[in-house]
Amino acid sequence: MMLRPWWGGKHRNTAMPSAGDTLYDACMPQREFERIERLKSWFGPTIAPDVGIGDDAAVLHPDGPVVVTVDAAVEEVHFRRDLISWSDVSARAIEAAVSDIAAMGASLRGVGCGLLLAWTLPHDFDDASFDALCEGAQRAAKRVGAVIVGGNLTRAAAVTLTTTAIGRARGVPLTRAGARIGDVVALSGPVGAAAIGLRALLLGRGEEQVFAPFVHRWRHPHARLDVGKTLVAKAHAVIDLSDGLVQDAAHVARASGCAIHVTARAIPRLDDHERVAALLGEDARTLLLNGGEDYELLATGPREAFDESWTLVGSVEAGEGVYSDDEPTRRLDGPECGWDHFSAR
Amino acid sequence: MMLRPWWGGKHRNTAMPSAGDTLYDACMPQREFERIERLKSWFGPTIAPDVGIGDDAAVLHPDGPVVVTVDAAVEEVHFRRDLISWSDVSARAIEAAVSDIAAMGASLRGVGCGLLLAWTLPHDFDDASFDALCEGAQRAAKRVGAVIVGGNLTRAAAVTLTTTAIGRARGVPLTRAGARIGDVVALSGPVGAAAIGLRALLLGRGEEQVFAPFVHRWRHPHARLDVGKTLVAKAHAVIDLSDGLVQDAAHVARASGCAIHVTARAIPRLDDHERVAALLGEDARTLLLNGGEDYELLATGPREAFDESWTLVGSVEAGEGVYSDDEPTRRLDGPECGWDHFSAR
Repeated sequence: MMLRPWWGGKHRNTAMPSAGDTLYDACMPQREFERIERLKSWFGPTIAPDVGIGDDAAVLHPDGPVVVTVDAAVEEVHFRRDLISWSDVSARAIEAAVSDIAAMGASLRGVGCGLLLAWTLPHDFDDASFDALCEGAQRAAKRVGAVIVGGNLTRAAAVTLTTTAIGRARGVPLTRAGARIGDVVALSGPVGAAAIGLRALLLGRGEEQVFAPFVHRWRHPHARLDVGKTLVAKAHAVIDLSDGLVQDAAHVARASGCAIHVTARAIPRLDDHERVAALLGEDARTLLLNGGEDYELLATGPREAFDESWTLVGSVEAGEGVYSDDEPTRRLDGPECGWDHFSAR
Repeated sequence: MMLRPWWGGKHRNTAMPSAGDTLYDACMPQREFERIERLKSWFGPTIAPDVGIGDDAAVLHPDGPVVVTVDAAVEEVHFRRDLISWSDVSARAIEAAVSDIAAMGASLRGVGCGLLLAWTLPHDFDDASFDALCEGAQRAAKRVGAVIVGGNLTRAAAVTLTTTAIGRARGVPLTRAGARIGDVVALSGPVGAAAIGLRALLLGRGEEQVFAPFVHRWRHPHARLDVGKTLVAKAHAVIDLSDGLVQDAAHVARASGCAIHVTARAIPRLDDHERVAALLGEDARTLLLNGGEDYELLATGPREAFDESWTLVGSVEAGEGVYSDDEPTRRLDGPECGWDHFSAR
């Protein structure tokens, strides 16, 4: 059995051709097959001998429960090509997907684990950019300890990088639904920084030195597999912060049937958070509470579940919703509570 | 642990807003959360008690090797909304992905199996169309015996339906690489029909009764899980026919290090194949050899591996490439051999 990852590609094209073209035209020209060969040469060496191989599909040999997730990064929705390099886009897409694995306390290392990368690329996507995508994906896979076992390559008008991550559960997977009244609420790291970085980039100010650590947080998120695994059999509920602290805390509160109270001044943030937010004309507190894409973990559990790498920011109480406690108590989640600001369209 | 599928959605939007908009604007408005609830109500009942549940991710409990594949169906590339209903698009996307599971002789039934659906939808995609996507996905999942365990919903300019299928290997999975000299080559059903159906649709003639069985083949492919499983421990190599007989046979020949010879007149086809191709001004033989998307299986092995549901169409020989034997022997694969016709761009 050969040890190489598998790559597929569906080739039909139903786009109405111009006169003289073939109707049911291959959407994957010859060079796309060359690209599949390139993918194999990029990702082939990552394959561990125990992974096995498929060709219409990949074969994995899990030795226990598996944790699976899928996540898409879409050009003009999740990124713009003028804001981030192709190498960083593909790494970021993998980290964002793997963040969900981290939030379950699961691992991507060892038998039964792997990543599938389904990429749609425009017809004129050039080879250097393609290699950059491969390099970034390879780098991220290495960082998270995962092997790329296969994927799919197809043409589309926009770049879409869809990552399926198959991890290995450690013990009982951590969910959003286990928060208990009396739990503390803890964060694995600073929030609001990626949102500031993105805003600086969108305003064309990403090159200014003062924004550099914030831009770095948006461009280079790291799935917190390292701290996620420390929570297994200790924490009661965990979620990764992709949508912003309040919105993700609201998911935990809803799933667990309780309320979450946070102390805004306790929320970890980068040095200069307030000053830098002001430079952009933004409200620092709003960015802290609602800025997304930091990919830190929010967890609830008994105080002793959290070592010194965590910051305690609140508590789980009876009721429903998300509240701030360091001013007259105010509900933060829901459209009527300031949160609609982010869903405005 | 609650038994419901998990659905994610990344919400940031880096598209430069018009004046007055929020910059880091949620790409998933409130109603998208309603849509996730809709998805749960559509797909929740399919969850078997042994599947388990994630929320940042889904948890599966495989009891042996798993077979994983991912496949994307992209609007304007793989389908056009004027050629097929939304319900049939989503069913078709699942069948196409599952076809790769069928080609491995694997199953989607039972513990450890499931589908993840990552859908990108335009902002103005209406609720009735969304429900139609759900209905079709539910119908296809039921047909292939799979549970939908999660997915991802995000906004994009075009509809892209990306399906990850996680199956359960039966014995040693069947690959493309095992064909041996002396094997017979067999097909599980007719080919060239979906290509005729698509061509009729593209020419605006899909409603004509004579094309109905062909249009049906394009719109309603069925992954051949039923015959795939009969090949385990019997066939030597298997592939599903997504790209056309010659191209897919060439994959087997290349992976196995041998040549495949086919007898064109033995290839199973729908009644009227020749007449109907002529009505469209197409070459019937070319459609038979190169028309894709029938999702039948091509397998090689000893003659006794194949029961009466299979049609023997050729043999595995020393050498390389794909040849037709019922005229002066001619190589069929490769750009110099008439196959370039389909990859012209």
